[in-house]
Amino acid sequence: MFPSYTLRRLLEILGDDCQVVGDYDGSIRGIAPLEQARSGDLSFLGNPKYRSLVASSQASVILVPEDYEAARAEGQVHIRIKNPSYALALVCRDIEGTLFPKPPAGIHPSAVVEDGAEVSPDASIGAFCHIGADAKIGAAVLQSHVTIGRSAVVGDESYLFPHCWVGDYCEVGRRNRLHGGCILGSDGYGYEYIEGEHQRVPQIGNVVTEDDVDVGANSTIDRARFGSTRIGLGSKLDNQVQIAHNVKVGKHCLIVAQVGISGSTLLGDGVVVGGQAGIAGHLKLGAGAMIAGGTAVVSDVEPGSKVRGYPAMPMMLFNRMAVLQRKLPELFKRFDQLEKTVKSSGAETNRSSK
Amino acid sequence: MFPSYTLRRLLEILGDDCQVVGDYDGSIRGIAPLEQARSGDLSFLGNPKYRSLVASSQASVILVPEDYEAARAEGQVHIRIKNPSYALALVCRDIEGTLFPKPPAGIHPSAVVEDGAEVSPDASIGAFCHIGADAKIGAAVLQSHVTIGRSAVVGDESYLFPHCWVGDYCEVGRRNRLHGGCILGSDGYGYEYIEGEHQRVPQIGNVVTEDDVDVGANSTIDRARFGSTRIGLGSKLDNQVQIAHNVKVGKHCLIVAQVGISGSTLLGDGVVVGGQAGIAGHLKLGAGAMIAGGTAVVSDVEPGSKVRGYPAMPMMLFNRMAVLQRKLPELFKRFDQLEKTVKSSGAETNRSSK
Amino acid sequence: MFPSYTLRRLLEILGDDCQVVGDYDGSIRGIAPLEQARSGDLSFLGNPKYRSLVASSQASVILVPEDYEAARAEGQVHIRIKNPSYALALVCRDIEGTLFPKPPAGIHPSAVVEDGAEVSPDASIGAFCHIGADAKIGAAVLQSHVTIGRSAVVGDESYLFPHCWVGDYCEVGRRNRLHGGCILGSDGYGYEYIEGEHQRVPQIGNVVTEDDVDVGANSTIDRARFGSTRIGLGSKLDNQVQIAHNVKVGKHCLIVAQVGISGSTLLGDGVVVGGQAGIAGHLKLGAGAMIAGGTAVVSDVEPGSKVRGYPAMPMMLFNRMAVLQRKLPELFKRFDQLEKTVKSSGAETNRSSK
Repeated sequence: MFPSYTLRRLLEILGDDCQVVGDYDGSIRGIAPLEQARSGDLSFLGNPKYRSLVASSQASVILVPEDYEAARAEGQVHIRIKNPSYALALVCRDIEGTLFPKPPAGIHPSAVVEDGAEVSPDASIGAFCHIGADAKIGAAVLQSHVTIGRSAVVGDESYLFPHCWVGDYCEVGRRNRLHGGCILGSDGYGYEYIEGEHQRVPQIGNVVTEDDVDVGANSTIDRARFGSTRIGLGSKLDNQVQIAHNVKVGKHCLIVAQVGISGSTLLGDGVVVGGQAGIAGHLKLGAGAMIAGGTAVVSDVEPGSKVRGYPAMPMMLFNRMAVLQRKLPELFKRFDQLEKTVKSSGAETNRSSK
Repeated sequence: MFPSYTLRRLLEILGDDCQVVGDYDGSIRGIAPLEQARSGDLSFLGNPKYRSLVASSQASVILVPEDYEAARAEGQVHIRIKNPSYALALVCRDIEGTLFPKPPAGIHPSAVVEDGAEVSPDASIGAFCHIGADAKIGAAVLQSHVTIGRSAVVGDESYLFPHCWVGDYCEVGRRNRLHGGCILGSDGYGYEYIEGEHQRVPQIGNVVTEDDVDVGANSTIDRARFGSTRIGLGSKLDNQVQIAHNVKVGKHCLIVAQVGISGSTLLGDGVVVGGQAGIAGHLKLGAGAMIAGGTAVVSDVEPGSKVRGYPAMPMMLFNRMAVLQRKLPELFKRFDQLEKTVKSSGAETNRSSK
Repeated sequence: MFPSYTLRRLLEILGDDCQVVGDYDGSIRGIAPLEQARSGDLSFLGNPKYRSLVASSQASVILVPEDYEAARAEGQVHIRIKNPSYALALVCRDIEGTLFPKPPAGIHPSAVVEDGAEVSPDASIGAFCHIGADAKIGAAVLQSHVTIGRSAVVGDESYLFPHCWVGDYCEVGRRNRLHGGCILGSDGYGYEYIEGEHQRVPQIGNVVTEDDVDVGANSTIDRARFGSTRIGLGSKLDNQVQIAHNVKVGKHCLIVAQVGISGSTLLGDGVVVGGQAGIAGHLKLGAGAMIAGGTAVVSDVEPGSKVRGYPAMPMMLFNRMAVLQRKLPELFKRFDQLEKTVKSSGAETNRSSK
């Protein structure tokens, strides 16, 4: 699956600001970490702590920092460049364009487009897509089995992977990536307990994602009770994330896999939430707050603060507590011993003080 | 997306038991909380603690409790009514009927219905639905991409959202709402370790949901090893809930997002399980038990009791423990100090008692 | 849904190594646990602790261990056999073959197969399947709405349930079972923070599952940044599991529902991960390690060791700690008391020693 590259093509991608040491006539056939790379592979020194692995690497071409000077294996090429990790990303982006070409514009004959829907002539609508009445699809890519609800909107340059569903009236911004099976616009979970039954509270709002939002595979975002559940500009949600109704996620947030955020909670800009964390409803997480993985947040979090634990506490306190927790068995023993000492000593003292 | 309402139409929905103070000629164009509402919006005072926000609200029409008497902004209408929150739900239900009209009966030409399947003439079968052999579909709505397995049953007035899958032989009751991407009838997770390999244990039971059950988006309910995995009357499951094989959920339970319930566990009626809680297998949770979010339940829970923690403990104990846990660093310091005092004091005592 | 069996047919399935006590002319119409079984049911004594339930069971036929000798109810049959639980699995496998017959080979007329795809003539391709360009499908079963990406491979005898998606270039081994809605090959979650924005790092690797792998409903496995995310021979993943990019799962691992494994982590052979556990990135879990449900693993785990907790600690230590944690309120009280005693005693001592 890897497209073959010549050294010359590689250098075209990297541009002029690099220095080539050595030469390699063969084709570059893969990318691998330094210690796993074989002849024909491209590798890179991204982290200085792996510096010692360069000498023994079998890679044919290695991206190294500008100041890296050391022996090369016979027939190996070093490319000295400012940021080897970023340089590798440039190469990967080029490969991505080859491996995952943008499908041609047009509507697959198997797709169903309801009356009143407007589909951009530059859009690519895949097999078995269903576009609801009055929906508006910009110059976006919809892979197979994508469902777009009534009056929903999808912005230009967005990419919707198979099996995802954008519900009625929901609005997807530009340059979004909605991964497979994700759902925008399921009903919010709201019931009133009346006469022994849970009566459904109608959920008549929608979901809005601003530009440059990513939503991970099989993630779910509920429509608002009224108004909008909103994901801010540039925020990135990982797989299997659950966002409840009326949540507002700020700009440039990172929400890692399997996180759950309960209803009406507000995240400021740049909040980072680690995997499997859970956040209760009606809370405010200030801008730049960091929530460690697995944390249960049950009260507001100050801007810029770091919390961890079940329930959440300041990260420094948690880390100290986690160490001491393991010492509880020892503490209880020491305590029993001390109690005995004090009692006998007390008796002793009592005797001695008579 | 919001349908426009006149005050007259609003009062028709609310019925006679309300008192109107003021008049408003314009159209009502949205619903918003008191402090976010703008001119043209409907708002409501649901919780007495927000009473002070009414005076400064920009809303054109506000639902207030019967005993609410205070100054109104110029041109603002107050509607005094017994339960403003319930009154709002009535309005939302009316809006919902307009925004999400029931699709007409009939089978979309792209749908595939296998031999022997019986589909009610009142059913609405959406694009790309697949109805298995010998399945029975009542007067239900199936949106697009719904898969119904062989000999499966869907009751009248149930609503199946896009991409959900009801597996072979499974039975969905009446008035269920199965949200997008949810799965009823995946294989139970059962293996026997034989000669170094995990051999699959056949799962030949089904899933049964009684009437008025809701299943959230991307939730999964496994078929029983034999017999049925069962969800009781009126129980409501949120998104990304996982129910293992042979679990029985009682009537009117609430199971919040991302909860996992392991095999053969039994929930009594009215059990509430908070988000991300996990419940081990072969347990009994008594009627009315409440499991706090994130709790790990590893033993039976008494009817009506409240538990929390990892592992679960009585909620009162957990709350006390959670406070003290944060004091562990302080306790360890105090303890070290006390130990020193006792030792030196002991030496002192020993000296003095000689 | 249960196929009717005669006693004679049952004995054919079980083979010669069993001894029949009593006779039963009726049909066997169901399978149930001893205490729930009714007349016409087959039951079994799998666990010696339920021995007392045999006598009162209403089951018409009961599989019992070879050494089981006790009174039978009127008209009840006991079948003495070496491993009653395994014997039941044999019966269930036979029933499974009847209830879930393998669909006939062929491509459903609604399916879309892109140019260059090779589909085995023995494959069964269901309604609304989409097979990408240059994909290779062996003698596998694809139920409805399955999406196979460009150049992806599906091995012989694999079974893909509705709505699952195998992404571009991913490779599924032989005899895999990919349950409904699962996704192999969503993008890895990788961003670089550049000039105030999270820039996506291209994910150009794939997902490889070796032979005999099961993936649960709505589980997600991300493609590698480069190279492969890999699931080893015979490993079984439950529902709603999340596997991040570049993870390597060894052979014969069990990964229970709602587990999340972060990027580049390596699991040795035979690792067992309990439900809802979370494992941080770039870790090594040694062969045979056992991770208890709900555990948060944040550092390497030794082969064969058992860990539990948030964060993970040796299971024995956790269990001890969990008991003592509940005694914290008592400990704090005892401590306050002891501190008082020591202080007053110290004063006493001081007086007495003067």
